Parts: sequence; C-alpha cells; structure tokens
Amino acid sequence: MMLKGILWGIAALIYLCSPELYAQYVVDTSVSINKIYGVNTVDQTYKVDGYLVTSWYEPDTTYRPASGERVYENHQAEQLMNAGMWVPAFEFINIIGKRQTANMRLVITADGRVTYNERFQGLFTTEMDFRQFPFDHQIFELIMEPFSYEQAQLVFGSARIDIETLDNQSLSEWQMQGEPEARVSRSDYAHLQSGALSHFSRLTISIEASRKPDYYLWRFILPLSLILVASWAVFWIEGFSERLMTSFTMMLTVVAYTFYTSSLLPRLPYTTLIERMVIMGYVSIFAAILVIVFVKIREEKGRPVKHVIPRCRAIFPTLFLIAMSMLIGVNSGL
Amino acid sequence: MMLKGILWGIAALIYLCSPELYAQYVVDTSVSINKIYGVNTVDQTYKVDGYLVTSWYEPDTTYRPASGERVYENHQAEQLMNAGMWVPAFEFINIIGKRQTANMRLVITADGRVTYNERFQGLFTTEMDFRQFPFDHQIFELIMEPFSYEQAQLVFGSARIDIETLDNQSLSEWQMQGEPEARVSRSDYAHLQSGALSHFSRLTISIEASRKPDYYLWRFILPLSLILVASWAVFWIEGFSERLMTSFTMMLTVVAYTFYTSSLLPRLPYTTLIERMVIMGYVSIFAAILVIVFVKIREEKGRPVKHVIPRCRAIFPTLFLIAMSMLIGVNSGL
Amino acid sequence: MMLKGILWGIAALIYLCSPELYAQYVVDTSVSINKIYGVNTVDQTYKVDGYLVTSWYEPDTTYRPASGERVYENHQAEQLMNAGMWVPAFEFINIIGKRQTANMRLVITADGRVTYNERFQGLFTTEMDFRQFPFDHQIFELIMEPFSYEQAQLVFGSARIDIETLDNQSLSEWQMQGEPEARVSRSDYAHLQSGALSHFSRLTISIEASRKPDYYLWRFILPLSLILVASWAVFWIEGFSERLMTSFTMMLTVVAYTFYTSSLLPRLPYTTLIERMVIMGYVSIFAAILVIVFVKIREEKGRPVKHVIPRCRAIFPTLFLIAMSMLIGVNSGL
Amino acid sequence: MMLKGILWGIAALIYLCSPELYAQYVVDTSVSINKIYGVNTVDQTYKVDGYLVTSWYEPDTTYRPASGERVYENHQAEQLMNAGMWVPAFEFINIIGKRQTANMRLVITADGRVTYNERFQGLFTTEMDFRQFPFDHQIFELIMEPFSYEQAQLVFGSARIDIETLDNQSLSEWQMQGEPEARVSRSDYAHLQSGALSHFSRLTISIEASRKPDYYLWRFILPLSLILVASWAVFWIEGFSERLMTSFTMMLTVVAYTFYTSSLLPRLPYTTLIERMVIMGYVSIFAAILVIVFVKIREEKGRPVKHVIPRCRAIFPTLFLIAMSMLIGVNSGL
Amino acid sequence: MMLKGILWGIAALIYLCSPELYAQYVVDTSVSINKIYGVNTVDQTYKVDGYLVTSWYEPDTTYRPASGERVYENHQAEQLMNAGMWVPAFEFINIIGKRQTANMRLVITADGRVTYNERFQGLFTTEMDFRQFPFDHQIFELIMEPFSYEQAQLVFGSARIDIETLDNQSLSEWQMQGEPEARVSRSDYAHLQSGALSHFSRLTISIEASRKPDYYLWRFILPLSLILVASWAVFWIEGFSERLMTSFTMMLTVVAYTFYTSSLLPRLPYTTLIERMVIMGYVSIFAAILVIVFVKIREEKGRPVKHVIPRCRAIFPTLFLIAMSMLIGVNSGL
Repeated sequence: MMLKGILWGIAALIYLCSPELYAQYVVDTSVSINKIYGVNTVDQTYKVDGYLVTSWYEPDTTYRPASGERVYENHQAEQLMNAGMWVPAFEFINIIGKRQTANMRLVITADGRVTYNERFQGLFTTEMDFRQFPFDHQIFELIMEPFSYEQAQLVFGSARIDIETLDNQSLSEWQMQGEPEARVSRSDYAHLQSGALSHFSRLTISIEASRKPDYYLWRFILPLSLILVASWAVFWIEGFSERLMTSFTMMLTVVAYTFYTSSLLPRLPYTTLIERMVIMGYVSIFAAILVIVFVKIREEKGRPVKHVIPRCRAIFPTLFLIAMSMLIGVNSGL
Repeated sequence: MMLKGILWGIAALIYLCSPELYAQYVVDTSVSINKIYGVNTVDQTYKVDGYLVTSWYEPDTTYRPASGERVYENHQAEQLMNAGMWVPAFEFINIIGKRQTANMRLVITADGRVTYNERFQGLFTTEMDFRQFPFDHQIFELIMEPFSYEQAQLVFGSARIDIETLDNQSLSEWQMQGEPEARVSRSDYAHLQSGALSHFSRLTISIEASRKPDYYLWRFILPLSLILVASWAVFWIEGFSERLMTSFTMMLTVVAYTFYTSSLLPRLPYTTLIERMVIMGYVSIFAAILVIVFVKIREEKGRPVKHVIPRCRAIFPTLFLIAMSMLIGVNSGL
Repeated sequence: MMLKGILWGIAALIYLCSPELYAQYVVDTSVSINKIYGVNTVDQTYKVDGYLVTSWYEPDTTYRPASGERVYENHQAEQLMNAGMWVPAFEFINIIGKRQTANMRLVITADGRVTYNERFQGLFTTEMDFRQFPFDHQIFELIMEPFSYEQAQLVFGSARIDIETLDNQSLSEWQMQGEPEARVSRSDYAHLQSGALSHFSRLTISIEASRKPDYYLWRFILPLSLILVASWAVFWIEGFSERLMTSFTMMLTVVAYTFYTSSLLPRLPYTTLIERMVIMGYVSIFAAILVIVFVKIREEKGRPVKHVIPRCRAIFPTLFLIAMSMLIGVNSGL
Repeated sequence: MMLKGILWGIAALIYLCSPELYAQYVVDTSVSINKIYGVNTVDQTYKVDGYLVTSWYEPDTTYRPASGERVYENHQAEQLMNAGMWVPAFEFINIIGKRQTANMRLVITADGRVTYNERFQGLFTTEMDFRQFPFDHQIFELIMEPFSYEQAQLVFGSARIDIETLDNQSLSEWQMQGEPEARVSRSDYAHLQSGALSHFSRLTISIEASRKPDYYLWRFILPLSLILVASWAVFWIEGFSERLMTSFTMMLTVVAYTFYTSSLLPRLPYTTLIERMVIMGYVSIFAAILVIVFVKIREEKGRPVKHVIPRCRAIFPTLFLIAMSMLIGVNSGL
Repeated sequence: MMLKGILWGIAALIYLCSPELYAQYVVDTSVSINKIYGVNTVDQTYKVDGYLVTSWYEPDTTYRPASGERVYENHQAEQLMNAGMWVPAFEFINIIGKRQTANMRLVITADGRVTYNERFQGLFTTEMDFRQFPFDHQIFELIMEPFSYEQAQLVFGSARIDIETLDNQSLSEWQMQGEPEARVSRSDYAHLQSGALSHFSRLTISIEASRKPDYYLWRFILPLSLILVASWAVFWIEGFSERLMTSFTMMLTVVAYTFYTSSLLPRLPYTTLIERMVIMGYVSIFAAILVIVFVKIREEKGRPVKHVIPRCRAIFPTLFLIAMSMLIGVNSGL
C-alpha cells in the first residue's frame, strides 16, 4: 500500500519534470528562416519567410501506407485532414493577422511517423527598444503554440532552427549575432476556461541581430555634425543683424533636418540617440541666439560685454563635445 | 383565473428584467486582447488582435461525444457547422470590413457544453476626440452582436475581458487606464423588418487609454516654442529692412513647420491643441510684421513712435504666456 | 373579340405603368449605412460600410419550413443557394472591384417569405465636383441592380434607407444634408444581347452631404492670407535690392505653400477655389516684382516715377479684396 | 482526283482567310468599360472596371433546358463548369496579376446558345510614352486570348466595345479620342510546345485618350515660368554680392520645384516636356551666375566689361523664348 | 561476381553524372517572362509576371484519354489533382509570400505526356548590389524546386526561358544584357530530416539587366553638379558676413538635396555612387566655411592671409575633379 503511494509520487515527480513522457503526442520541430525583412519600428513588427517542419508518431494506423512513405501535397493533404486525420493546428502567438502558406506537405511512413512541412510568411511583433538607434540591436522572435491541444495531449520535443544564407549578409541592414536559439517552455492561460488554467507547450525561437549604422552615419550624423560645427561660425560674424539672421538660417536648416528625420525614424514615446542629437542642435542654436540678444541688450544699456562672444567660440564646441560623449557613454532614458 | 393572470404578470416582469432566463441559448463570452495598434486618426480606426471564446449549452445531443470532450479545428469545425450544427455567427458592429480568423476551434463535451474559440484580427472604429491631442485619452471599443439570432433565441451571459501583457507597456505609445470593461446590453433595429423592431443582445468591451505625449513634446512643442521665442529677437534689430526680412524668415520657418505637422496630425474639422499652438505662432509673427510696418509708416509721415518697438519686447512674451496658459487651461472648441 | 382586344390593351397599359404587377419576383429592399469614409478626391471614390436586406415571396415550397421561420447563416446559406434555391445576385453598378461580405443570412418563413441579409463593405465611385472645395457638397450614391434577372423576372418594390448614428456627427468631416433618398427606376443595356436592349430594375440610394471647411480655414486659408497681406509690406521697403530679395523670399514661401497644397488637394483638371487663391498669391507677388523692376528701369533712364510704389500700397490690397470677393461670389469654371 | 486536289486547295485557302469557318467554337464578345482609372506612370499601368460578355453555340445538348433559357449565377455556374460543361477560360495578356470577378452568369438557351457574362476589375499594362507629358495622349488596351484553346478549337467572332457614360467626362483627367476599337487577330507562341508554334485567336480592344493638361498648366508651368521670368531681375541689381545671393535664392527655389515635381511626375529613363522646362530653369540660372562671376573677375583684373550685364537683360529672355518654342515645336528625344 | 561489381560501379557513376536516368519523373520546363517590374531597392525585391510550363511522362494510364489530348482548365484541373492525379507542387525558393495564379491548365495526351501550364505573378528577392547606383546592373533570378519530391523521384530535364517583347524596351528603366539563362543544379537541405541531407533538383533562371541612368543624370547629377560649381563663387565674394551667409545658403540647398535623395535612393548599409557625390558636396561646402573662418581669425589676430581665398578659386575645382574621377574610376566599398 505504502509502496504504491511512493511509486505514484515518483511518477508525479517524473511527470512534472518531463511532461513529454506522458503527453499523447510529442512533436519535434525544425524551423528554417529564409529572410527577415520589412522591420517596422512604429508598430514594432517584422516579416518572416521560412519553413516549418513538425513531426510526430501517430499510433492510429488508418492512414499508414503498407510500406515506405506516402506524400500528400496541398489540397490532397487538406482532404486527409478534413477526413479526420490528426494534424494539429499551430499558431504563432506573436503573429499579426494570419500567416500565408505557399505550399504544405504531409508525409506518412509505414512505421507511423507523420511529418507536416509548410512554407510560411507572416508579420510578427516583439518588444523592440530603439533607445540606442541607430546603434541598436534587437531580438527577433517567433513564439509558437498548438492552437487547441494542451500539454496533456501535445508537447514540443526536440527543436531545431536554421537560418538560410540565401541573402548576402554583407549587403543587408542587419547582422546576426551569435547562434539562433530554439527553446521549449510552458505557458498558462486563464481566459479559455472559467476558473481553471490551461497549460500549453510553447516553442520560442530567438534570433539576435544588430543594425549596421552606416546609412545613418553618412546620411544623417555626419551632415548634422557639420551643420552644428558650421553654426559656431556665427561668433566670428560682426554686427547684430548679421549674427541673428545667420543663426535663424541655421535654425531653419535644423528644422528642415527634423522633417527629414521624421520620415527616417520611428514615432516613439521616448527619444532615440539620433533624436537627442537633433534636440542638442536646436538647443545649441537657440542658446547662441540668446547669447547674441543678451550681448545686444547690454550694449544698448551702455554696459557692453566684450568678452562674451569671443569666449563662446571656445565654450560652445567644448560643451557640444561633452554632451556628445555623454550621449554615447550613457544609455540614459531621458 | 385571477391567480393565473398574476402569475403571468410576474413571469413577464421576470422576463423583462432577465431575458436570459427565457432565451433559448445563453452565450458566455471571454475576449483576450493581444495588441491594439495602427491607430488611424483620420478614419478614427484601430486594429485589434485577440482571441474570442464563446460557450453555450446545446440541448441537441447529435454531436456530443460519448465521454470527455472532442476537439474540431479549422476545416473540421467548418464541416460540422455546414452539416447543420448550431454555431451562431457573431459580428462586430463597429468593425470595418471583415475580421481575419487565423485559427478556430470547436470543443464539444459529453454533457453538452459547446465552446467556440477563434483568434481574430480586425480594423475597428469608434468616436475619437482629438481636441486635446497630444494630451488626449481615448476609449477603444469592441461591440459584438449575434448576426442572426434575436434576444428571444440568444443572449449574452457572463462576459470577461483580458489584456495580454505580451507588449512591453513602457515602450508603446498608449498607456491603459483603469480596468477594461465588458458590458451586456440590448440594441434595437428598425431596418430588418418593416414595421417592427428587432432586439439583439449586445456585448460592449471598452478599454480606456491615454497617449504618452513624449514624442510630440520633444519633436514638436519644444522646437516650435524655441522658434517662437527666437522670433521676439526681431524687436532688438534696428533698421526696417532687416526687421522685415528676419520676420519673413521666421514666417517661412513656421510655414515649414505647418507642412511637417500635416504629416503628423490628423486632418480634422476642429483644431487640436497642437494646431492652436501653430496658429498662435502664425498670428504672433504676423502681428510683429504689422507693428513693424506701422512704426515705419509713422516715421515716414514724420510722426515717429519711439516706444512701440521696445514695449513689444515685453508685450509679446506676456501675451504669448497668457495665450499658452489659456490653451492648456481651457478645453475650448474653437 | 373586340372586348378582348380592349382588355389586352388595358393590360399592356397597366404593365407599362407598373411592371411589378407582372414581374415574377418583387424584391423589397432596406439598406442601412454604418459609415461613409475614405473619400478619395482623385479617383472620385468613397468607402461604404452597411447592411443590405432584400426580401421577396417565393412560390416554390421546396425550402419552406413546416412552421415559423428557419435561419441559415453564411456557409449553410451558401449550400442552400448551391443546391438550387433562387437567391438573385445583386451588384452595385458604381462599385469598384468586389464588395466584401462579412456575414450573410437567409431567413425563410412558412408562408414563403424569403429574406436575404448581408453586411457589406465596398469602394464606390460617383461624379464629384470639387470646384467649390473646401466649401463643396457632394452626393454619395449606391446604385444597385440584379446581376442577371431582367425587369420581366425581377423588379424592386418598396425601398428604405437608414443611416446609423454610430459615429459622432460633430467629429466627422462631412455633415449630412436633408434626408437620404431611395429611388427605383429602370436602366437599359445594349451590350448584353446583339440587336436588343435589356431592361433592368435599378435602385438608387443618394445621401447628400456638405464638407465642414474648418480644417482648411485654419490650416490653409488663414496662413496664406496672412502671408499675402505681409507681402504688401514690400512697398514700404526702400532700396531696389532689398525690395527684390524680400519679394523673392515671399515667392519662395508661396512656392512652399504649393507643395503643401498638392498633398492636401486633389489633382484635378480644373482649379478648386483654394487653388485659385494660391494662383492669385503667385500672380500678386509676380506683379509686385514687375512693378519694382519697372520703377528701377525708369530710374536708370533718368525718368524716376516717384508715385508708383506708394500708390501700390493702396492698389494691391484693393485689387486683392476685389478678386477675393469675385472668387467667393462667382462659381466660375476658370 | 485532280478535282479533289483543287477542292482541297480552295478549302485550305478559305481556311487561311477565315479560320472561324473551321474552328470548333466561334466566340462572339462584347466588352463594356465602366471606368478606367489609377493610371500609374512608373509601372505603365491602369485599372479597368467593366463587363465581359462572351457567347457561342454549344453542340452538346446535355445542359440545354427544354425550352426558353436557364440562368446560372456565381456558385451555380461554377458547379456546372466543374461538372464538365465547356466554358473556356479567357485571360488578359496584358493584365498584371489576377482579375477580380465580382459576379458571373451563365445563360443557356434551348437552341444551344451559351452566354457567359462577368463583371471584372483588373490592373493592365501597356506601352506609354510620356515624352509630351502633360500634353500626351495614350492608348489604353485590353488584349484577350483563350487560355487553353488554340485557333483550331476556338476563334473570336464578332467583337463589340462600349464605354459607359457613368462618369462625368468634363470632370476626369482623360478625354476619349475617336471611337474605341475591337480587333480580332492571331498570335503565335513558341514556349508552349518544344519545336512547334501554337496559334491563338486574340482580341485587342484599344481606347485612345488625351490628357487634359489644366492641372499642370496652373499648378506647375505658370508658377515656374513666373519664377524664371522673375530670375532675370537679377541683371538690374547692382553689387556683386547682392546679385549672387539673389541668384542662389532663385536656384534654391527651382531646386524646391524639382522636389515638388518628383512627386508629380514619373521616374522615367527619358525626360518629359515638363522636366525639360525645369532643366532649362536650372541651366538658365546657372548661366546667370557664370555671367555674374565672369564680370566680377574682369573687374578685379582691371578690365571691366560694362555692357555684358545690360545686354543679358535682353539676351536671356530671347534665348528662353527660342528654347521654349523649340521645346513645344520639336518632339525631341533628348 | 567481380563483373557484377564493375557493372554496379559503372551504374553508380552514370547515376552520379546523370540523375535523370534513374529519377522516377523527368520534368521539362519552359518559363516565359512577360514583365519584370516594381524593383524595390530596400527589400531587394522585384515582381515577375510570366508563364510556367512543365511537362513529364506519366506511366499511370488512369487519366489518359483514349486518343488525342484532353484539356482541363482551372477548377477541373484541381478536381483531377484532388482525385489523386500526380501533379507535383513547385515552389520558387526566392519568392516572398505566395505566387498568384491567374489561370492554370492540365493537358494529358493519349501517349502519357502531361503538361501543366500556369500564368503566375510573384514578388521575388535576390542579392542586389547598389554600390554603382545609378550605373548598376543586376541579375534578376527565379529559383524553382519541387516542394516535396527529392531528386530520386523528380529531376528537371530540359529547361527553356523566353522573354516577351510586349513592353517597348526603349521606354523602360532596365535594359536586358545578353541572353537569359536557365540552369539545372542540385541543392541539399539539412532541416527536413534529422541527421540526413535531402537532395532536390533546382532550376535557376537568371536575367541580367543594366539600369538606364538618364533619369538620375538629368534630375540629380546635373543640378547637383551645377550647385556645387556655383558654390565656388563664394571665393569671389568680398566681406566675411556675405561669404558666410552665401555658404550657409548653399549648405541649406545641399541639405534640401539630401531630403530629395532619400525618397529617390535606397536606405542601404553602404553608400551608393550618387550618395558619395552628395557627401562630397557637403564636405566641400564645409571646407569652404572652414577656410573662410580661418582667414577671418588670422585677420583678427592681425596676421592676414591674402592668398588663401584667391588660391581656393583654383584648388576647390581641381580637388573636386580629382575626387569625381576617383569616384567613377574606383569601385571602392567606402
């Protein structure tokens, strides 16, 4: 009697540690990614094109061929599934809308192994942090679960992830970092049954990549830096009107830059590194205008301040360099 | 006889108060929202991705399994529905177009409980008020009704709403306020039958959220404020031509700002808070030009007005601050 | 014999006046509009989301229920139609592409009444006249005909149109004028049969609406007016170079305005009211430049014209006001 | 024997001249165009919405009704075609993607006449020549062939084309020229069979239309002309710096014009009339700058050239008028 | 015994060299391209519209007609495939999403030849190198493989590629170079089976084309060159303020050019030829500003440098020409 209880306890322990021992179906998966593209910073989405291969042992012998293997493509595979063959529906948790399936295939072997293979394309979403943009790196994820079958019926077994090298890596905007990872875990839902949690097996694929900042360096950071440096020339100009009008022209140039940026950068509730640089540009030119007007007011009142303008020739570049190095050094949240 | 009448009256009263006692089917619902995104201010629309779980008791025993529960996915579920199983079509009243259903599932238990579950994505519309933009808050709604079955046949029972925390809340543009709400009510239609009202049970899900204004503060309100403040420098410039040309440059800068804004802001029949700020900018610079030309005319006529320009150095900032505080204080309809 | 002829004549007369007496099917319609949105001025299109309810008496008793009514939704209704039940296809004549049908329903009563109900969304087109833009009003139309059945087989009977008040009318760009109208008429086609006209019953739904011009007033007409008024300041400036450069800056500002407008306004083969205003702006500044150069030439030749510039200070505003009032008063075709 | 040969020769001759005598099916067509819109100059595409009516004699009596005619709509028509009724698939050769079919109908008469009718919408492509843009005229074409049946089995018989007058012609950008034309011809393909040509009957519908240039005249050519004319004012300005800065401002204005144009005009490998005008603007202002600097250099070297600038006041307008008239007169390929 | 081994060795050798001798099905292909368009530089994609003809010998006689050939179109062909007829699914490896099939056809001859023909449209991707843009040339590829059948079952036999001359080659942006090529090879996959490679037959179609640079020459390179040349005029201007303000105006003009470019050019992680030209423009104007300020500083300190500015009149054009010729001569990766 006692022995029986101990045996049951061991069984329960084994179950908690390795649910695949008890699940009705253990599904091995292999995902191969062709291309990740169309990264949309505003909605935090990206498109993935790839292959999904899932495979399990089917005890039911109804659809097994006498020998070898039998291949069913597209409509023929659908007919089989409609006729009642067990092929679970998988869903990507972090997909937006529906995935497009260009082709699908069902292979059944004489010894009961079923392999379902499809080429899919979908729009996925994940948390993206653009605070270091354009020096950011992101983790592109695919999170997959069976749509209907809980952990008691279906668990993910071995998982494998491949990245195709179809695209010339030296030409694309993103550079993969480290190895892609496939992880099996469990997720719990409360909304499916009232008063009870549902447990689903979950497969998470993560690909870490860093952005190549070249485009933004050459087309954005370099010219903006030159404009800001050029704006300091205002302190060598003589005459109040000339100084002011030159500053206003610089201001207009930076405003124009802002418009250009807004088509380039995401509309985020926080500021990216590149935006902080633009804000610095604004503030710097505005400070120059304040200095110029202040000097003018003092002159009008008969108390000229000779040294302010010449000193600014050194102060502005110094402050700018300090601010720049802080910007690069600190990952501040502003 | 009399007693019977009283009993009928009580029954009618109960019916009016609690239609679910009499309806043929009582449908419990549970909606789980993954993501609200793609808020379009012009058409007043937003996209919702989520799960819809509906559940009811089916007295007809035709499709019940002998024991436990039976799961039908996608095409298999469709076949069952085509064969005649009662699964009501639900429609979102405030949807635009058709909802996309990535996966669907029908679960039937031996004791007659039917659960229909789908993942959906759709474009929804609701009244949005952008008068306080970018400091606005909106109520995102999903209004659902059975497409064909009136209240006598189908009423919504218990309703539940969950919001997934998949997305990092600190990174998105909207911040949820309070708890999401699910409310069951009744709606009446006149266009379905001539001379009679049709009564439908209605489920309304409301999610209140406020916009994080950071993007607009840093990229719009701050630089525009700096430009407006800088425009007052015109009153320190001497010489009519210089004053005028500087004012014109400022005008051009604000015009450039307007173009930028029009890609940022909705095209609404009323003015948003941010637009009123731009209009103030226009009017302020125009007033400065009027003052400058007025002073010039008086000079030409030999009646110079010495004090106007210096006084403007104080009057313009003061008026601007008053107007700004009114703008923030008052929710005027302009 | 004679009597018979007279009777036939009367019958023919009745037929001509009231075709529904003789048509095989009289279809009553009821259209309920949820939302009209996405008005595209270039293609002259708009999107409509609504319900279409059609109803007729079916003499064939095959599909009638024994008693009460029977409801068929979506796929079940399609199966019935495929099996041979007569449900006519309706088409919107002025639709672009195909309408999307989110849900559909077929109700058949024991006494032979068939009601077909669908929720539809489509892109419609109609003649739009933007000459008075942004003070224009348009008639949004839905023109419906049976796709296959001529007047001898199918005529529209009673027609009803409802506009949902789901959207807050005070917030949208269009304001409905008067009552929406549903009109039944006849249309004839020559391309279906060689050498013979085909007659179809036609249902026309018209909704008249006027645009709220507030957005264009605040964001376009007011700033442009201020710029034009400011451009007259050029006549107070002294010195040829200053005058010319200020005029050029104004010209550049109005050019910038044109770019802004082109994203705002339709690209039409005629000029809208707002465009005529921009053209006036161009021509006015160009005329100022001509005057300035003319005065300069006369000066160079030693015949200075003292009074031209001062007079322009009065002439330009006067001409502008006259042109403006003409623009508003006259609906010229330019 | 000889006679037989001659008879065969005659038969072959008749066959070559009139293949429809021998083809198994002669298909009469009638196309009715509702709307041509969405002309995309870059991809050389346009959208067409219309009706396609095809009709032929079917010797097989399987599907003929006993008397009168029988109408099959949409799904019912599809069922008939799936069951094996001969309805050939037609394809538009110059379509992009797939055509959308909103409704389709099959009418079979007791005497064997089959009429297939559909409403279609598609994106079509044709050679477009924009060298005279915006004074160009284009030929919109629809080229149709049977997808599978060669000339021996199917030839087009009579062809008819109608243009609906639904759209108010005075309001659209294109004006139809002459009568639309429907032409039957033959096309040969080598890629279907190795070593043999396949012959298909082809129906070509051509609609010639010319663009109304009003929009481009008022919004582009007029203001650009005014700017160019205004740029000549630079020759009346005195002082090297003023001349140069005014010229630079004009250059900036024309650059701004180029940006505006690029959203307005196609990105073509050849220059359109309107682009040649912009290039003339560039070159003209650049020439003025060259002249100004040349005069300056001569002055510095102590050999002033008094007459160059005054002469340019006449030379530039003259050259511009000559270039303009050449541009309009000659259809050069540049 | 020994003989047998040798024979086997020879057989294996033949197999390795010519797998089609042993494959169950040898599929001959013929691809005809109508149009390549919509080249998207950012995602490195293009759209292809064409016909795919595949043909093989089917030993199974079930579906053979008694004599001649039998044609099945669209739905009828699908029914045959659903019924079990062997028609392999092909997939384009480098497609994005799913291809659209407007029409398809199955032809079966009495002697067992099966021909599958479809018209397809799809979005394809390939490596594109824009370093020489707009003087680049690209290779447009279509890579096709059977979706399910490995080399043992299916190999590609003869392959043929045709390019339709429907489009007027003189009007499109791309000019085909040399002959298009169709190549059969083998590809191996590891992700389909654990621990084993799968071998598939692969058909690669390559079309080499070079871009016609006319648009970019006239609209971009010419005006930018003129602006840069004009910017050297700054060295003839006298007075520090005038020099600086003119330089700033030029800087603003080039900044405006950058905005214009960013809508014209891809956002790539490397710089294109045209971008390097813009960067040169920036740097050149910035260098001029540095020189101007340097001269000013020396003047202020009482050590004027007379010869710097006049020498720059020659140095800047010289350096520019050297840089330009280097840019054109060298295909540097920057």
